[in-house]
Amino acid sequence: MSGRTARRRVLRITLPGDGRPGGSAPRADFLAGEEPLGIRVDGAALTMTMRTPGDDLELAAGFLVSEAVIRSPADIAEIKLCDGTSCGHADHDGMGNIADVTLAAGVTVTPGARRNFLTTSACGICGKTGIEDICVLPHAPLAADPACFAPEMLATLPDRLRDAQRVFSRTGGLHAAGLFTAGGELIAIREDVGRHNAVDKVVGWALLEDRLPLAGCVLLVSGRASFELVQKAVLAGIPLLAAVSAPSSLAVDLAEEAGLTLVGFLRGPSMNVYTGAHRLSA
Amino acid sequence: MSGRTARRRVLRITLPGDGRPGGSAPRADFLAGEEPLGIRVDGAALTMTMRTPGDDLELAAGFLVSEAVIRSPADIAEIKLCDGTSCGHADHDGMGNIADVTLAAGVTVTPGARRNFLTTSACGICGKTGIEDICVLPHAPLAADPACFAPEMLATLPDRLRDAQRVFSRTGGLHAAGLFTAGGELIAIREDVGRHNAVDKVVGWALLEDRLPLAGCVLLVSGRASFELVQKAVLAGIPLLAAVSAPSSLAVDLAEEAGLTLVGFLRGPSMNVYTGAHRLSA
Repeated sequence: MSGRTARRRVLRITLPGDGRPGGSAPRADFLAGEEPLGIRVDGAALTMTMRTPGDDLELAAGFLVSEAVIRSPADIAEIKLCDGTSCGHADHDGMGNIADVTLAAGVTVTPGARRNFLTTSACGICGKTGIEDICVLPHAPLAADPACFAPEMLATLPDRLRDAQRVFSRTGGLHAAGLFTAGGELIAIREDVGRHNAVDKVVGWALLEDRLPLAGCVLLVSGRASFELVQKAVLAGIPLLAAVSAPSSLAVDLAEEAGLTLVGFLRGPSMNVYTGAHRLSA
Repeated sequence: MSGRTARRRVLRITLPGDGRPGGSAPRADFLAGEEPLGIRVDGAALTMTMRTPGDDLELAAGFLVSEAVIRSPADIAEIKLCDGTSCGHADHDGMGNIADVTLAAGVTVTPGARRNFLTTSACGICGKTGIEDICVLPHAPLAADPACFAPEMLATLPDRLRDAQRVFSRTGGLHAAGLFTAGGELIAIREDVGRHNAVDKVVGWALLEDRLPLAGCVLLVSGRASFELVQKAVLAGIPLLAAVSAPSSLAVDLAEEAGLTLVGFLRGPSMNVYTGAHRLSA
């Protein structure tokens, strides 16, 4: 089992120009680790994700929150990485690349957004493009969250995320998700080759710490905001999702419907507020 | 059915500083369109992806290439967008959000990488982390491709991709994948909120144009290079995959095994060659 980063040899080529002689030379490079993680629930394979190893139980727990399967630590009877003993292959490689979750009595895997969409039968899914058909959210679940955020505080978060990310990463290849208080204090940060995984790890951490719902918090992602990231934030009870880059159309539509404040292009001294502007104390 | 971009109202906030007064004002913003596309093969739902509408048949075809289901246009008997007539709901919204593929006689859906991994039974997937277990590639399929590429040509590609991308996109929210000749000529470019979709669209275009395998070509992606993008390039027969940003560890390992030349951090006058450096005429 390898780790969060991996060392590989690379040929670095620089072209001549601007007085540089140019040339090529081998050197060592640190890459973001990427390996498959299988998530098994009550003995059955549920999904597989390509992820950066580390925080795997948080990832599995957060994925189940994002699929609306669980909402509190009490919904999990046991969560562990496969140690090889149950399958009689304790000597094989790849141990730890399965997260084994046993749900508490009465908790079942209900279809999440994608599977719900996929398994719609009859006329298929061709007519199902309304938000209500592809996500599992209750109507406007965040509307009652009274949290208020200062734009001046939000503008400081990307630098804080990057500073914290530098500590973990020397690969240049990782997405980050950071959870902050309304005062701008960093609560948790996770990194992954997959941005969805980074968010799932943060949410799973919060679940396992029994901090859900994350009322009054800000979630900042290092890239763009998609429909799925908005859905994850809403299911975790986070009232404000901020992204360094652009949101998609469906991200904005779902944020509007769910009562989430969605901020995009949070860079330097400016930002775009797509929905829920009433939470910004401008 | 909406389109590649969507217009939404946004509150633009700028903080005071550096002599700026600061303030906030509403304005219109163009967002990258994001909607679900279901892919149905021989009448059964195969997968769903959140994509930017447009080039949907290419996306479906490219996805099937990437899953090693098809390799030539002859493998497809018919491919079309659901027009609502087959389900009796010709009046509903969302028409066009299903791609209906009928495979040619004798062509079947064999499990692709993810499903193969997921459905491995018995001791489950805990021991399966070797590349051979999670992908469907033959050994070193690209090793025989004699193509050679000049670093000077590669260094020009990111600007060419961005220039072409500007024509299509005003949203700042789209990934791009561009296919180039060994001489640096742009053959095809596609954009999507999902980088995997952008590559699938390019590959699907090539399949439908009967251009597979794409021997001698370069595929450039605007972001990072993951395991899955490497797999897509290899299955399309592309000997060189270049990324503006970092590759993951598994991307490098698979590229090495498949005989693919993998270039990362292709920026300005320099680049990192992770595998297959013999193809670079440095």
